[in-house]
Amino acid sequence: MSERGRALIGWRNPEGPVSAPDLVQLADLLLSRRGEASGVALARSLVRAYGAAPMAERHAFLLLLAERYGPDAEGVARAVAALQAGEPAALEGLHAAAEPRRQELFRRINLAPGGTAALVGMREDLLGALPETPALRPVDEDFAHLFGSWFNRGFLTLRQIDWNTPASILEKIIRYEAVHQIQNWDDLRNRLQPTDRRCFAFFHPQLVDEPLIFVEVALTREIPGAVGPLLDLSRQPIPAEEATTAVFYSISNTQRGLAGVSFGNFLIKQVVEVLREALPGIRNFVTLSPVPGFARWLAAERKAGDQGLLAAPLREALTVLEQPLWHQDSEAAARAKAALIPAAALYFLKARDRRGRPVDPVARFHLGNGARLERLNPLGDLSENGLRQSQGLMVNYLYAPNEIERNHEGFAEAGTIAASDALRKALPG
Amino acid sequence: MSERGRALIGWRNPEGPVSAPDLVQLADLLLSRRGEASGVALARSLVRAYGAAPMAERHAFLLLLAERYGPDAEGVARAVAALQAGEPAALEGLHAAAEPRRQELFRRINLAPGGTAALVGMREDLLGALPETPALRPVDEDFAHLFGSWFNRGFLTLRQIDWNTPASILEKIIRYEAVHQIQNWDDLRNRLQPTDRRCFAFFHPQLVDEPLIFVEVALTREIPGAVGPLLDLSRQPIPAEEATTAVFYSISNTQRGLAGVSFGNFLIKQVVEVLREALPGIRNFVTLSPVPGFARWLAAERKAGDQGLLAAPLREALTVLEQPLWHQDSEAAARAKAALIPAAALYFLKARDRRGRPVDPVARFHLGNGARLERLNPLGDLSENGLRQSQGLMVNYLYAPNEIERNHEGFAEAGTIAASDALRKALPG
Amino acid sequence: MSERGRALIGWRNPEGPVSAPDLVQLADLLLSRRGEASGVALARSLVRAYGAAPMAERHAFLLLLAERYGPDAEGVARAVAALQAGEPAALEGLHAAAEPRRQELFRRINLAPGGTAALVGMREDLLGALPETPALRPVDEDFAHLFGSWFNRGFLTLRQIDWNTPASILEKIIRYEAVHQIQNWDDLRNRLQPTDRRCFAFFHPQLVDEPLIFVEVALTREIPGAVGPLLDLSRQPIPAEEATTAVFYSISNTQRGLAGVSFGNFLIKQVVEVLREALPGIRNFVTLSPVPGFARWLAAERKAGDQGLLAAPLREALTVLEQPLWHQDSEAAARAKAALIPAAALYFLKARDRRGRPVDPVARFHLGNGARLERLNPLGDLSENGLRQSQGLMVNYLYAPNEIERNHEGFAEAGTIAASDALRKALPG
Amino acid sequence: MSERGRALIGWRNPEGPVSAPDLVQLADLLLSRRGEASGVALARSLVRAYGAAPMAERHAFLLLLAERYGPDAEGVARAVAALQAGEPAALEGLHAAAEPRRQELFRRINLAPGGTAALVGMREDLLGALPETPALRPVDEDFAHLFGSWFNRGFLTLRQIDWNTPASILEKIIRYEAVHQIQNWDDLRNRLQPTDRRCFAFFHPQLVDEPLIFVEVALTREIPGAVGPLLDLSRQPIPAEEATTAVFYSISNTQRGLAGVSFGNFLIKQVVEVLREALPGIRNFVTLSPVPGFARWLAAERKAGDQGLLAAPLREALTVLEQPLWHQDSEAAARAKAALIPAAALYFLKARDRRGRPVDPVARFHLGNGARLERLNPLGDLSENGLRQSQGLMVNYLYAPNEIERNHEGFAEAGTIAASDALRKALPG
Repeated sequence: MSERGRALIGWRNPEGPVSAPDLVQLADLLLSRRGEASGVALARSLVRAYGAAPMAERHAFLLLLAERYGPDAEGVARAVAALQAGEPAALEGLHAAAEPRRQELFRRINLAPGGTAALVGMREDLLGALPETPALRPVDEDFAHLFGSWFNRGFLTLRQIDWNTPASILEKIIRYEAVHQIQNWDDLRNRLQPTDRRCFAFFHPQLVDEPLIFVEVALTREIPGAVGPLLDLSRQPIPAEEATTAVFYSISNTQRGLAGVSFGNFLIKQVVEVLREALPGIRNFVTLSPVPGFARWLAAERKAGDQGLLAAPLREALTVLEQPLWHQDSEAAARAKAALIPAAALYFLKARDRRGRPVDPVARFHLGNGARLERLNPLGDLSENGLRQSQGLMVNYLYAPNEIERNHEGFAEAGTIAASDALRKALPG
Repeated sequence: MSERGRALIGWRNPEGPVSAPDLVQLADLLLSRRGEASGVALARSLVRAYGAAPMAERHAFLLLLAERYGPDAEGVARAVAALQAGEPAALEGLHAAAEPRRQELFRRINLAPGGTAALVGMREDLLGALPETPALRPVDEDFAHLFGSWFNRGFLTLRQIDWNTPASILEKIIRYEAVHQIQNWDDLRNRLQPTDRRCFAFFHPQLVDEPLIFVEVALTREIPGAVGPLLDLSRQPIPAEEATTAVFYSISNTQRGLAGVSFGNFLIKQVVEVLREALPGIRNFVTLSPVPGFARWLAAERKAGDQGLLAAPLREALTVLEQPLWHQDSEAAARAKAALIPAAALYFLKARDRRGRPVDPVARFHLGNGARLERLNPLGDLSENGLRQSQGLMVNYLYAPNEIERNHEGFAEAGTIAASDALRKALPG
Repeated sequence: MSERGRALIGWRNPEGPVSAPDLVQLADLLLSRRGEASGVALARSLVRAYGAAPMAERHAFLLLLAERYGPDAEGVARAVAALQAGEPAALEGLHAAAEPRRQELFRRINLAPGGTAALVGMREDLLGALPETPALRPVDEDFAHLFGSWFNRGFLTLRQIDWNTPASILEKIIRYEAVHQIQNWDDLRNRLQPTDRRCFAFFHPQLVDEPLIFVEVALTREIPGAVGPLLDLSRQPIPAEEATTAVFYSISNTQRGLAGVSFGNFLIKQVVEVLREALPGIRNFVTLSPVPGFARWLAAERKAGDQGLLAAPLREALTVLEQPLWHQDSEAAARAKAALIPAAALYFLKARDRRGRPVDPVARFHLGNGARLERLNPLGDLSENGLRQSQGLMVNYLYAPNEIERNHEGFAEAGTIAASDALRKALPG
Repeated sequence: MSERGRALIGWRNPEGPVSAPDLVQLADLLLSRRGEASGVALARSLVRAYGAAPMAERHAFLLLLAERYGPDAEGVARAVAALQAGEPAALEGLHAAAEPRRQELFRRINLAPGGTAALVGMREDLLGALPETPALRPVDEDFAHLFGSWFNRGFLTLRQIDWNTPASILEKIIRYEAVHQIQNWDDLRNRLQPTDRRCFAFFHPQLVDEPLIFVEVALTREIPGAVGPLLDLSRQPIPAEEATTAVFYSISNTQRGLAGVSFGNFLIKQVVEVLREALPGIRNFVTLSPVPGFARWLAAERKAGDQGLLAAPLREALTVLEQPLWHQDSEAAARAKAALIPAAALYFLKARDRRGRPVDPVARFHLGNGARLERLNPLGDLSENGLRQSQGLMVNYLYAPNEIERNHEGFAEAGTIAASDALRKALPG
């Protein structure tokens, strides 16, 4: 073992920066006999050395993982031979033989204090390099498989986030909010402290201070059509007992390294349960959601002319959107509204991407969860971002407990889109 | 879906007891599209129904798991073909294809509140049936694989057990103590509350009140040779600061359903770290261990005569053990002691089982962890059980931090047994 | 300052046992300038030295407190002169002048870690000596006054005691239970863990592990008339939701040093609130109470003949109690029951002690709290103790929220005893 | 009882605002028999009604407390007579007789949930009115006496404030910081999160989210002379283990209603203990303190001419302070520094207020605690406020554990001011 290796194990800094071969040396050791005796210490050294390595060396190390710690080819060959010879239990034996050695490496890295967080960080690094380095794909799959098992919903805990939550967690809420940016601590407090606001997050026991996903909820007297009034710092809160509607107005995933592990569906459904229990007066559970693909789709359809989904009169009506600041001119806004509604109905109910799915990613998420499209809200988000991505359009998805299974099955099996009558009637013609 | 099935999902009791087909119906549903939409609810129903089923139906259900939810044979065939055709990433693809569907089923069962505990309980049921039903082996392997990942040491927390611990946990310590039975609450208190006693356990976040493994520790002024004085209710405690030695005198696993997941090695090593930090005066970390295979081995060797490891004079000397209550007769006890020491040295250092390993299972555990055999203690455990299983012999294993890796590697690779000079010198001749 | 004093401050043990003058020396110091600068350290030394002193020296010290640290006589004389001269604010000034210096001493002792517990312990010591040493009375009054303020109900917290409570607290429940002795840990568990049992205690933040008072509650389907079935280890629990009645069957104060500080009234009323909130099905809040003065009173009345409250026929009927083991003979028991009921009605409704109050101390407590006498239960407690102190009689007091104020006022102002019609009708004649 | 009173007890809002007579009606009730039975409920009503009353009515109510609930004059007269008649225990009886009924009222108000906080708030209201309403003085004294007992240091808990502290507490740190204003959450984080920063506060169990006093600490390599670098957002933290010095650079009381209850002395001394235990490398415990009375004193002395403490040459040298922005001109600043040092030495060591005490209130606090004046730091605080109140001067007080008692006694008994040699030598002449 090299002098550099000994330095890294002993937590001394070697001369020169930590390199990919250094990391591989530690990984080999961790997978060896010595790793059985001193796994915690070696894992700690590897985590620390990885953290000290520059990004280029991390990427090189991850690539070496792809090359070096795949499944044992000989073992697989033997298992395949046994299978083809019809040996008993051969099918099951194949699974063990085909497990990449990376999986065991990851499990051993997890022995280190902070090991889970370190592995999530490695995956984040990997995802940054994946587009240019497709050879990393198998490593990514191993991460995804492992995290799918470790971050199983049964291991997560739901916690309410409020003004008594530690600041170290709250600052992450500020940082991670992805839908309607939190401006500062006053804005944050306005989303947590009033009687008619709630926020919930999933946590994993090993990532103590890291919310994995969180949802912000407004309790209201009716289904809202615009996000501005919800976020207004000067609005008057209502007593929670007077609310009839819970509005999920923002859901944000926080850990890029956990991409592909699905939390949102479970979070929404558990928060619905929690709120029903605590506030029996709430009858409607809806979102107030952005429509991120709408503006681009609309531009393309307008360009497509008769080849597209928009008939000529509707295309004509939509020219009002070319007028600068149309949304500040009440007459133009009224016309825009009248044109956007049928266009949006086409977008949600008729438009499909190449794989035959609804174009809108947020729609795919909520419809896949079993929600239904409830109401279109043109002029729902007049922020710069809202105008750019969706011409100001927002939409409510409604989670009706007794419809969820049916909607989900219809969507998953036949692509059926659950929508309110009102929304269906908005289709032109 | 049958009326019975609907009753079980609705948490009503169906007519007649829950049966294996009922459980399979729920398992199918949980693995279906509907399981995607309502996984938590279905998993809860399955867990509840399983808990209500009689043991025979549980066993039948587990056997159905073996038959019904193995790997997808067609998918495997395709993946093997791809591998043999030299397709890229085929090796990795094989692992996914060969995963038994049981693994996904288990992950979905884990969505239920209490799901993890339920799965551990299922494995416990399975282990009860396994000896007579070898077809359950693949299901057992799936449990073992999953639990090895979920109960990774990185997910466990070490907690001290003391007299401020909730009674609901303490009663489990009483129940699970496997080495030196705890008689009652006074006996328990005597192992937890005095200044020179400690107890530590690993817990998993999902099994809140269930210690997975625990170790009882005595802090002493010297390495003890007998367990009686340690457990004496009337002994005088010493201040922890005056101790030089930490004695691990009992380690007990608690969850039969987690058999094969190794906790003991990690527990001992972390407790060593914790005690070194808190009590710098402690220099020796030893066990006071039973020798469960000794009496049987000794009987066999004495019968084997010259074919065995015991020379005639030693066999002759050992006849003192035939004298009833020899240990209460000081002269006989002295002779027994003189004869047991060389016999025990042979037992530990020379005797091997069919697989070439040390005969004693406790020895295999501690030597495998990197400890060394330190001292033989004839007359160490004069309880009825101690006399029956080991003719009263106990042994100290010593954990010397700077030897552990070397001892472990020597033992694992060459079967080398680390032992003190004194113990080696006890060998006859 | 003496060598002994310096040793005590330095936490070294002086030669010979700690004496009352040693303690006074520390108390003087604590009340001096030096006590202002180093109060915490001096208080800690005094607490420690007091704890090490033999009881005789503690009593001597407490007596010195009476002599040495009373009010400042000169200051009082000045304040009285000011008052009599009609000076403004003289009345208020008198209060400050008349404060015994002990009060400041106690407040300074409280600076020590564990100071509050130490002071409660001092009072306990004092109460042991008070009967023979009336000169300690003023010291006792100072303790009582201080504790009345410090243990104000506003500073107490209600906590449920259950099977998840730390063993260190549970063993105190076993030790302190004063009404129906807890035999062992199984008996304890039987009072805490079943679905239809509750236990609540008041705690003070400074006495972390010390319940001050606790009440044991059974949830039942009807008002019980005997305690045996409630404590039966083999009884079948009912679901809490099916209960209509909460039975307070045991209330125990734990800290003799807090004698005279009233907790019971507050505890019962808050537990009523907690249970009403959690279990709306509970409509009756009753006790099942012992009648500790009954047997003695009955004996005296029977002896008093026509001078007493019992008419001759009733006295005659009561002779059944002279038959050994009358309660095991069903015919005799029936006769005893018929005789005990009118006698008990007289005991509760007519008998008075010298100060004109009901004879029974438990009755005084519950009637003073505003409860009403609800039902007599002859044969309610057939334990040895129950027969000895009350000829087996028990009684239910009922806490009816809308009667409490009225009952309390009537009792406090006019000695009116609230009782059910049935109980009134049980009066002879 | 009036309709209004019933409404207030029933938690309904009476017509018209809550008035002082309403409050007195509730207070009378709380002190009556009915208060014994229903103290918690009545106290809750009173607290709620007080909170709803306008400030003028609150003041009127507090004034009624002065008039209505003083000591019982007749009882006092009897007790005085007994004393003058030489009756035994008369001295002690006088104390009880002279207690104002307000004290019992306050204890009963404390029964309400939130009662303690409500009483502290009442005192705060009272202090606002006291300057114009001297008749409130006796009420204030009762509050002060009670709070001195209830907020005894033995009932307080020390907690570290850091970035994991709930936001609801942190926002109070921002609000209450009285010495060096906290600009925003980033500024706050800069005082809590870096490795070389600490903050500690005392809490009372009944005021869960309310720090009573807190101290901000910087860990440094030397005794600092200026506050600017300590608060600099861009400074580089040092590892805590490298620090030799703990600097208490800000201490703030938070509860105006607890004025006169002394926390600071205890807080500093316990934080010293905590830091010594955790960081043995720290040898110096100093403050970096403002000098709030210096600028005013200096102006007066300069005006006083030869009648004052400043000799003519020093007065002449101090004219540099008249130059605008002298502190930004390095030559002028050097001259100012040279003149300010002897002037400050006179200020601390020679100047006295009318009662013969040091002029500076901060000096009185630290010297009274037993600290010594260690070093003068002209140019220590060049903020606008620092220049205005102290011409930029700051000072270090040093807490040397082995000097504290002596310094305190010397200061308390003889007015002796403990100071370093360097500081003494700075005196002119």
